[in-house]
Amino acid sequence: MPVGTLATVKALSSAEVRRTSADILLVNAYHLYLRPGHDLIARLGGVHRFMDWDGPILSDSGGFQVFSLAGLRKVTEEGVRFRSHIDGSEHFYTPELAMEVQAAIGVDIAMPLDQVMPGETGHDAAREAVERTLRWYERCRTAQPGLSTFAIIQGGVHEDLRVMHAREAAALDPPGFSIGGLSVGESKDSMWAMTEAVTRELPAGKPRYLMGVGSPEDLVNAVGRGVDMFDCVLATRLGRNGTLFTDTGRANIRNARFREDPAPIDSSCDCEACSRLSMAYLHHLFRNNELLGYRLASLHNIRYLVRLTERMRAAIEDGRFGDFAEEYLARYRAVDEVVRKEQKAKWMERGRPEGRRGV
Amino acid sequence: MPVGTLATVKALSSAEVRRTSADILLVNAYHLYLRPGHDLIARLGGVHRFMDWDGPILSDSGGFQVFSLAGLRKVTEEGVRFRSHIDGSEHFYTPELAMEVQAAIGVDIAMPLDQVMPGETGHDAAREAVERTLRWYERCRTAQPGLSTFAIIQGGVHEDLRVMHAREAAALDPPGFSIGGLSVGESKDSMWAMTEAVTRELPAGKPRYLMGVGSPEDLVNAVGRGVDMFDCVLATRLGRNGTLFTDTGRANIRNARFREDPAPIDSSCDCEACSRLSMAYLHHLFRNNELLGYRLASLHNIRYLVRLTERMRAAIEDGRFGDFAEEYLARYRAVDEVVRKEQKAKWMERGRPEGRRGV
Repeated sequence: MPVGTLATVKALSSAEVRRTSADILLVNAYHLYLRPGHDLIARLGGVHRFMDWDGPILSDSGGFQVFSLAGLRKVTEEGVRFRSHIDGSEHFYTPELAMEVQAAIGVDIAMPLDQVMPGETGHDAAREAVERTLRWYERCRTAQPGLSTFAIIQGGVHEDLRVMHAREAAALDPPGFSIGGLSVGESKDSMWAMTEAVTRELPAGKPRYLMGVGSPEDLVNAVGRGVDMFDCVLATRLGRNGTLFTDTGRANIRNARFREDPAPIDSSCDCEACSRLSMAYLHHLFRNNELLGYRLASLHNIRYLVRLTERMRAAIEDGRFGDFAEEYLARYRAVDEVVRKEQKAKWMERGRPEGRRGV
Repeated sequence: MPVGTLATVKALSSAEVRRTSADILLVNAYHLYLRPGHDLIARLGGVHRFMDWDGPILSDSGGFQVFSLAGLRKVTEEGVRFRSHIDGSEHFYTPELAMEVQAAIGVDIAMPLDQVMPGETGHDAAREAVERTLRWYERCRTAQPGLSTFAIIQGGVHEDLRVMHAREAAALDPPGFSIGGLSVGESKDSMWAMTEAVTRELPAGKPRYLMGVGSPEDLVNAVGRGVDMFDCVLATRLGRNGTLFTDTGRANIRNARFREDPAPIDSSCDCEACSRLSMAYLHHLFRNNELLGYRLASLHNIRYLVRLTERMRAAIEDGRFGDFAEEYLARYRAVDEVVRKEQKAKWMERGRPEGRRGV
């Protein structure tokens, strides 16, 4: 799912996103609640009409955003009191309000309000968050029984909690499952162990959505572990930075080696940039901070991820996903390591500290 | 002509600009000479291919830009020595180099290098600039005889110089005429008097291009005085500021009165924004500095100006241009005066000085 936090996939029109063959978009209930307000969107006919998107829309409840407001929030069983990151105004966000917002804007799939914890949360606090998330899910379903609302599974990096939450969530027979609280700073090993622990417990016929995951290699790794859905702010955020997805790793278009490159970003890609324009032109646009550059790079990255899911789907249908994943990751990683080595050498040469990106 | 200074109409793709029915684009030879360099564009197959525009392209020579670099330049009969506004590097721009750049990037219509003077230039200095511009035009044609190069007519606000330059230029039988050195700070009365003085002297069958002019009301006034072509950075610059052209004057989308407006910018417009989106959505995009807002507003403004030229052409063909212009300007001005009055009242109220734009 391309991410349209504020009812716009950054830099792109809905018509363009549609042409990438993305089936479904994500918007963020927390952001739209604050600006322009869910009531206003409802009065204007709902978020589909507002942003001119005729496919399905899934909304994040804003749990992640509200719990990220460190110092600005106070959590009780009833809900979360927080100050707006925009104007400092005080709000009380409850499971019921999160659902009211999502029902008002008229999304197709809603997320319940969940209690999100930092990656390093200990077992006791993580268990309390799981239990509260289960209670809040019940309140969400009671508040908007007509709205298709996935269950979000938490549990930090504690396998027993992940398993427990997955089993209890499955017993509630939700329309789909979201795996939350991963990709928030834990190790990749932990992330995949937790993903496997959860997907093993879930029924086969319902979608599993790994929240906030994103990169091409993560998508391949997650699909191999039974995940079906993703939301990827990375595609557009990296795009606006000039970082482009290719089968051989990430390319930064600002790099001088693309200054005179007549080739497209990826000759197998059919996006607007790859079919008609050269790396040299994109390099020129980024060098001059031209808005068209941000657009074309965002568009390419989204189309790249959509094509990657198409390739994975075809591989699954042909019974060759294992081979596909192995080849894909080997090629991607190999080049990525070369690039990282080059970057490191470059930074060492300049006498700058490591750890900051060189290209 | 939408303005694509750096081989990109700011915020828009070439495909989008094509859909506005704009027939011809403008690029700037001075800017492309500095970045990415005309040689590079030539090696990549020319500017049409570089930016993926298959219609005609006219290039400005960069005379206006070079002469705007006050303090950074030195003018002799041979050419202009200046420092780049980007990196301070020194360059010597001559009529021959300006033509070499335009031939290398492969434009369809070139502009000669001309000597541009400030609006308030006295008679003697303005006459010298006219005479030098005539000599430079000969050098330009000699340097690139195969390139279709308009004659630029200067003369400041001195009617006798404008008439003299127009007559001498007409005698040289160029493919078209550019009226330069207007809309640079002189009064509107002077601007129209000079335009009329020039167009009266020019042959009827060749295009007349009023350089750097721009607003809807200026287009109507200029067409009434025999002008055929314009370049309009205003459409995209105002668009990025959230200022939208309508038949009833300019509207600023950031204004709170559009917060909940379900109507399109202009119900008679067929641009992407007007056919599918509300003022409320555009207001939301601008309020959140979303890039899509800059795009949609730029697109609307260009389509508005293209439609205005279509309406003027139809009125001319029907023999009713006088009535059209009178009605158009009366409606545009009347509302504009109301808006200005409101703005003034608003600023007076806040105790701020007049003269700065209030909305």
